[in-house]
Amino acid sequence: MGLIETMHKPHDRLASALADDMAAVNALIRARMASEHAPRIPEVTAHLVEAGGKRLRPMLTLAAARLCGAAGDAHVKLAATVEFIHTATLLHDDVVDESTRRRGRPTANLLWDNKSSVLVGDYLFARSFQLMTECGSLRVLDILANASAVIAEGEVLQLTAAQDLATTEAIYLQVVRGKTAALFAAATEVGGVIAGAPEDHVRALADYGDALGISFQIVDDLLDYGGSADSIGKNIGDDFRERKLTLPVIKAVAQADAAERAFWVRTIEQGKQVDGDLEQAQAILARHGAMEAARADALAWSLRARGSLSVLPAHPIRGMLEDLADYVVARIV
Amino acid sequence: MGLIETMHKPHDRLASALADDMAAVNALIRARMASEHAPRIPEVTAHLVEAGGKRLRPMLTLAAARLCGAAGDAHVKLAATVEFIHTATLLHDDVVDESTRRRGRPTANLLWDNKSSVLVGDYLFARSFQLMTECGSLRVLDILANASAVIAEGEVLQLTAAQDLATTEAIYLQVVRGKTAALFAAATEVGGVIAGAPEDHVRALADYGDALGISFQIVDDLLDYGGSADSIGKNIGDDFRERKLTLPVIKAVAQADAAERAFWVRTIEQGKQVDGDLEQAQAILARHGAMEAARADALAWSLRARGSLSVLPAHPIRGMLEDLADYVVARIV
Repeated sequence: MGLIETMHKPHDRLASALADDMAAVNALIRARMASEHAPRIPEVTAHLVEAGGKRLRPMLTLAAARLCGAAGDAHVKLAATVEFIHTATLLHDDVVDESTRRRGRPTANLLWDNKSSVLVGDYLFARSFQLMTECGSLRVLDILANASAVIAEGEVLQLTAAQDLATTEAIYLQVVRGKTAALFAAATEVGGVIAGAPEDHVRALADYGDALGISFQIVDDLLDYGGSADSIGKNIGDDFRERKLTLPVIKAVAQADAAERAFWVRTIEQGKQVDGDLEQAQAILARHGAMEAARADALAWSLRARGSLSVLPAHPIRGMLEDLADYVVARIV
Repeated sequence: MGLIETMHKPHDRLASALADDMAAVNALIRARMASEHAPRIPEVTAHLVEAGGKRLRPMLTLAAARLCGAAGDAHVKLAATVEFIHTATLLHDDVVDESTRRRGRPTANLLWDNKSSVLVGDYLFARSFQLMTECGSLRVLDILANASAVIAEGEVLQLTAAQDLATTEAIYLQVVRGKTAALFAAATEVGGVIAGAPEDHVRALADYGDALGISFQIVDDLLDYGGSADSIGKNIGDDFRERKLTLPVIKAVAQADAAERAFWVRTIEQGKQVDGDLEQAQAILARHGAMEAARADALAWSLRARGSLSVLPAHPIRGMLEDLADYVVARIV
């Protein structure tokens, strides 16, 4: 990929505009993932944190804060907080999903064990909690406490509802808000709050994060059935093998004939999968235009994200956030 | 056990003196463990919360708060917070330890699965975080955030140091502070803080919780090698099978001859255990007076807990807390 193309990515433009803040966030993350007594903690954390993740969530906090005129360093602490919550969630997710690859590398639960992933995740939650407490804003604590509850509830809901073919798009949206959009929305909202932004700006930032997160997750679902392991750093078909009812499948199930329904019952509800089933699933999704329909939904959420920023004053960072909403769906158009 | 004997237990006297508060705590726990969307959450939580645990930690918060003249209902919220943190920790502990029994019943990870235990534990952490934020005290949040970090660090330390025969009593104490005493100390400390107690009283309450927790854990270690499954509701020898270097073993290792050292290396470091090893371990512990020495340590910590309360004004609840310190070690004398 050429330098010019790289520099045009809104994510990279944000990283460039927020470079000093991001350096401070990275330094803070390294300092706070240390443990005097338990070296396993920084080992496991570093494996994940330094694997080249996009740092999208902390960047959203920094962007929202700077867009709203933040000074001081509280927004840096909140950005690190958000990344710690995200990292803790990833560690636990990989245990729950029995994943073997994350960000193109073996997962921590594979390299160490499930125990380390559970306990180091707990440690990072606790660290995030210390960091946000240091900021001294009860409203910020309230937002992040509520987001944490929505995240955990969404994960449990996914666990229990995932293999139920009766899952509707409405339930899907609840799960997605829990697993992705709640933290995106909290990330942008606390950025506005800590900068002392007016209420309508804070609300707009929360809406932006929510819609961006939903769009982001639908794209992730689509890539799991159509991207390449090389480009997304995870195994194609993970969701199918884990019997997750993602948006394309929900749409295809709604239109399934008897034979197709029997296929979904066997592979998703009963989990009896054989070689060739993933390709068969992909063929059914294509037959009903389920991928196209999910793609349209992702685009609509992306537009909603972009539109929500219109109440905010003109600012280079606002433009980058708008472009980011476009870029999230660019992977699937 | 007769009614009179039961009523003499300091724990039951505390429960009686704090009955209205405890009823409010129990109602709050039931209300906050609900989940509109994910019924698995209250199912798993109820299994553990309603299994007849002693509610020791929330009672400590209530006792400290009332002893310091608390009014309002913030202390009730903090007591529920502490119980949620404890319950979350138990759910994750049972996954990490691969336990099959807890409070005399099959563990949640056995009845449901590890995934549910991990995610419901996360949900309860988030709920505890919401509850404490509602109290609106940044100092309370700071205490509980720090306790959460010490707890998680202690668990990881136990995971990595547990099977190392070089573990000293000093390291053991760090682990114990993490796994037990940090939450005991936070429970009593936040009770004092929320009641607006003077600094020396808050300090005394934190010291009491710390020493009580250490004493409590050493007793737990002792019972694992000497109690009965019936009386403690867990399997005898769990710690040995899980290759945990608990205090009696650390003391015996320090005095081991070559044959005994080889035994500990094989059973604890290498984890190669065969039938009869538990009995052999018990014989070695007895031979070196390791059980007696650990018992003496537990008693010393119990006395320290009792003594730390001397700065507090005379109050029926103070007397019950002093008696509780005695009672914790009564199981082993």
